[in-house]
Amino acid sequence: MSSIGPLEDDVTFAHIERAARRIAKHVHRTPVLESSSLTGLTHHTLVCFKCENLQKTGSFKIRGATNAVACEVERRAKETDSEEERRRPPLQFLTHSSGNHGQALAFAAKSHGYVAHVVVPDTAPGVKIRAMEHYGANVVFCRPTLADRMRTCDEVGQAHPGAVFVHPFDNPDVIAGQGTLGIEFMEQTNNELDAIIVPVGGGGLASGVAMAVKHLKPEIAVFAAEPEGADDTYRSFQQGARVLSHREGLPKSIADGLLTINSDRTFRMLKGTLHGVLRVSEDQIRHAMYLVYERCKLVIEPSAAVGVAAVLACPEALAPYKRVGIVICGGNVDISSISSLAKL
Amino acid sequence: MSSIGPLEDDVTFAHIERAARRIAKHVHRTPVLESSSLTGLTHHTLVCFKCENLQKTGSFKIRGATNAVACEVERRAKETDSEEERRRPPLQFLTHSSGNHGQALAFAAKSHGYVAHVVVPDTAPGVKIRAMEHYGANVVFCRPTLADRMRTCDEVGQAHPGAVFVHPFDNPDVIAGQGTLGIEFMEQTNNELDAIIVPVGGGGLASGVAMAVKHLKPEIAVFAAEPEGADDTYRSFQQGARVLSHREGLPKSIADGLLTINSDRTFRMLKGTLHGVLRVSEDQIRHAMYLVYERCKLVIEPSAAVGVAAVLACPEALAPYKRVGIVICGGNVDISSISSLAKL
Repeated sequence: MSSIGPLEDDVTFAHIERAARRIAKHVHRTPVLESSSLTGLTHHTLVCFKCENLQKTGSFKIRGATNAVACEVERRAKETDSEEERRRPPLQFLTHSSGNHGQALAFAAKSHGYVAHVVVPDTAPGVKIRAMEHYGANVVFCRPTLADRMRTCDEVGQAHPGAVFVHPFDNPDVIAGQGTLGIEFMEQTNNELDAIIVPVGGGGLASGVAMAVKHLKPEIAVFAAEPEGADDTYRSFQQGARVLSHREGLPKSIADGLLTINSDRTFRMLKGTLHGVLRVSEDQIRHAMYLVYERCKLVIEPSAAVGVAAVLACPEALAPYKRVGIVICGGNVDISSISSLAKL
Repeated sequence: MSSIGPLEDDVTFAHIERAARRIAKHVHRTPVLESSSLTGLTHHTLVCFKCENLQKTGSFKIRGATNAVACEVERRAKETDSEEERRRPPLQFLTHSSGNHGQALAFAAKSHGYVAHVVVPDTAPGVKIRAMEHYGANVVFCRPTLADRMRTCDEVGQAHPGAVFVHPFDNPDVIAGQGTLGIEFMEQTNNELDAIIVPVGGGGLASGVAMAVKHLKPEIAVFAAEPEGADDTYRSFQQGARVLSHREGLPKSIADGLLTINSDRTFRMLKGTLHGVLRVSEDQIRHAMYLVYERCKLVIEPSAAVGVAAVLACPEALAPYKRVGIVICGGNVDISSISSLAKL
């Protein structure tokens, strides 16, 4: 197992632009939809969604995974003259994920002709495991603890020495891939957005998108949105330094994609680009989910509802902005749980 | 109560073009979305959706209702010089509908500054009644029988002599409005579709869309899709003349928008334009609904799943066509019933 990419580097707009060209033919340019009924519930003149729930594999994660896979393939291609390279085992990919990153890496690897190994806690929902297997992944189960996850990852890496580990967010190629969403969002709205809201978990999406849109329009305000039950980014911003763990007894939220903590890299990038962090309660997340199903007719996962909840729950913070864009990060949710998650 | 429009006329492409200009600023130009995962389940090179679930009021019905309201307002404006006109009671609108047409007429009337009276069976779901009231409608309840519905309509018409009745589908202005969807669908796909599938109930949508797309591309094949449990259009085509009722014990289908029977006008228009009628079972409708939620991340109502079910259930009929477009007619469904309607 080797590490991927120049891990010491932060991501620049040039990285994101290259990623956009690299992944263009592998991912959807997802639509931006205006919701007149949601706009009507706010004091903004426009509330619109960048619909990554309609993205391949059902979330934005395919952008970063595709860029990471393609970058590694490019690096290998440049090295083919060396003796060392000719002795290398065949390229494969490896990650740990109970969710969207695992599906995305499986899909990205397969679409480039490679296999991905995905370490998955044995408590993960069947629907996600089936999706990974459908994309050709080698799914390896572990117990649902961090220690067992890392141990299993090491074992898989040792058994497959050509396997390149792709971190879900603490990886410049992944962050640059997620940032491509920001370029599209600005193009599709003619650079007219005044504020953008991005859900934040590990920070790969938020840091990449913030980097992209602030480059294209320095005066835009970028807000991260976070569940109260997993508010590490909020607390990090309050104290001016990255917190390393959740508060006691946390994280707790139905927004299962947002329970991780920023890395040094993503927090550093966010510090330089974010206008603020908006926190929302579980009830606000459930109600936002309900509204998006009922009024906007889109299937979204709870993590995606966090951004929508923020535009409704934080009118003071957003009062100065006329046109607000929300990143709908994904739509991977069990149909059978929709009725219990979304609440009037 | 007076009747609206030149009821004796069928609808031409010129009507539909005028309707498109008339309603443009009142309705959404809904997106066309390609589903790579659904395409992968068929032998076609492209399967795409015209997403009227993302339309204002959650269905295509707003197109026809808006055109009907706007046409009547235009007619009145032309007549303002006459003595008779000055003595007329103020313009209002009236219809009977337990579903999407009622919401649409309420919204269309309100957006032009008028009120709509909607006669609704007292068994209609609360969510639909709330939506009509939200759009400013005067909701009048009746018992859920055809006789009581007509009697109540007459009473409301007599109580409000300025009220113009707008039939849900047997009305040229309504049909022309629904046809505007066909013009958009062809423009958004660069005229490249080889076949289009449209769900059929009363036939207002199917006849309008078929008229529009056959004019723009005469070689395109238009199929109506229908539940087996409400297959009047299929039987009418089989016997070459319009059937006047459902088979004994029918209609029965979860596709509650497709239980009505073609009118003389819509059947005549369909006879001249349809390539065929595709029938699907209730299981096929439920499975299509599941797939669209799970893979395409769109909230659709059962009637909209009928077209999707047809592309999966009728591969022989559709074998000659590479690029197939499906009209997703609406997304108005109770969130609490999604889990019980959509089936793996």
